Amino acid sequence: MQLQLTELRIAGFGGQGVILSAIILGKAASIHQGAYATMTQNFGPEARGGACSAQLLLSGQPILYPYVTHPDIMVVMSQEAYTRFVRDLKEGGTLIVEQDLVRVTDLPRQTKVYSCPATRLAEELGKKMVLNSVMVGFFTAVTKLLDPDSVRNAVTDSVPAPFRELNLKAFERGFAFGLESLADGRHSQELEHVTMSED
Amino acid sequence: MQLQLTELRIAGFGGQGVILSAIILGKAASIHQGAYATMTQNFGPEARGGACSAQLLLSGQPILYPYVTHPDIMVVMSQEAYTRFVRDLKEGGTLIVEQDLVRVTDLPRQTKVYSCPATRLAEELGKKMVLNSVMVGFFTAVTKLLDPDSVRNAVTDSVPAPFRELNLKAFERGFAFGLESLADGRHSQELEHVTMSED
Repeated sequence: MQLQLTELRIAGFGGQGVILSAIILGKAASIHQGAYATMTQNFGPEARGGACSAQLLLSGQPILYPYVTHPDIMVVMSQEAYTRFVRDLKEGGTLIVEQDLVRVTDLPRQTKVYSCPATRLAEELGKKMVLNSVMVGFFTAVTKLLDPDSVRNAVTDSVPAPFRELNLKAFERGFAFGLESLADGRHSQELEHVTMSED
Repeated sequence: MQLQLTELRIAGFGGQGVILSAIILGKAASIHQGAYATMTQNFGPEARGGACSAQLLLSGQPILYPYVTHPDIMVVMSQEAYTRFVRDLKEGGTLIVEQDLVRVTDLPRQTKVYSCPATRLAEELGKKMVLNSVMVGFFTAVTKLLDPDSVRNAVTDSVPAPFRELNLKAFERGFAFGLESLADGRHSQELEHVTMSED
């Protein structure tokens, strides 16, 4: 089945592995799944403040115009990134947030929200820095956009050898948490919670 | 002095540090020099073949359209990348090549060519993998686009701590080689050589 053109944005603060997450998903789609991917990363005054974002286009066809304007899917790992980018999300799009770091408000209509305490899960595995692999695993489970084995291979390819095993464990932890969230219909609960919090 | 909008492409094969070079130059311009930078990287079937390229936009103003079409400056580290991209170079643009890996032919008109045996210089320093820092140093000297200290700081920021000293040495080696090339007017010699080889 061919990958449909999908616009993604991943955003957070420096040190969370935002860029590495985008590279892993880009490689999964392209190198391991025969599709195409383009990643754009901005440096600028905002980068000096520690904010960090990557835009990713995935497609079954070569990508001629690599500019992401209204992401179909957004992965957000900090409140600052949330405030800055949430308005860009496509109507009916998917929002994935780091549960303990982002308070979800002012959502575009019909957004599907999935949240994952990636930092906490990474800490349970012994290294906070693998939170991005937890997030990538969670993303893979809830979006069903990419073949999980392609993403596993891309994780293996993209992290230094001494950290491979730990990152794969982190991927599996996030992936399992994502499957549980889907089984629970947890994203609708989130949405209710959001609606309530706006009262 | 404000940085003018400049389009760059860096291309080579996997393992040469193409993407890292683009990240270093992007950070030098933005984080260390108060300007703006956007990097776009393509994954795709070509990435499976080992080819690798990054597009970089540098500007004194925020960048609204991050798509590089006709680079002002191109850094090319493999023959395959040369063949594929050389036609895109802007007329009157600057071409920087890895001297031992790229044979320069069919140049766009009025191209300024600078060549650096970065792989060999890196090997002399004991680690071939620092060829990208040699190339970044050479780039900094011949283009005069960025403040050398901004680039030094970006090298320091961007490589893992155990490799910092070696990469800074590699930067200085490439930078010195670039200054010598400018002093010799070596780029015109290169151009003569090219013309001769086409006879």
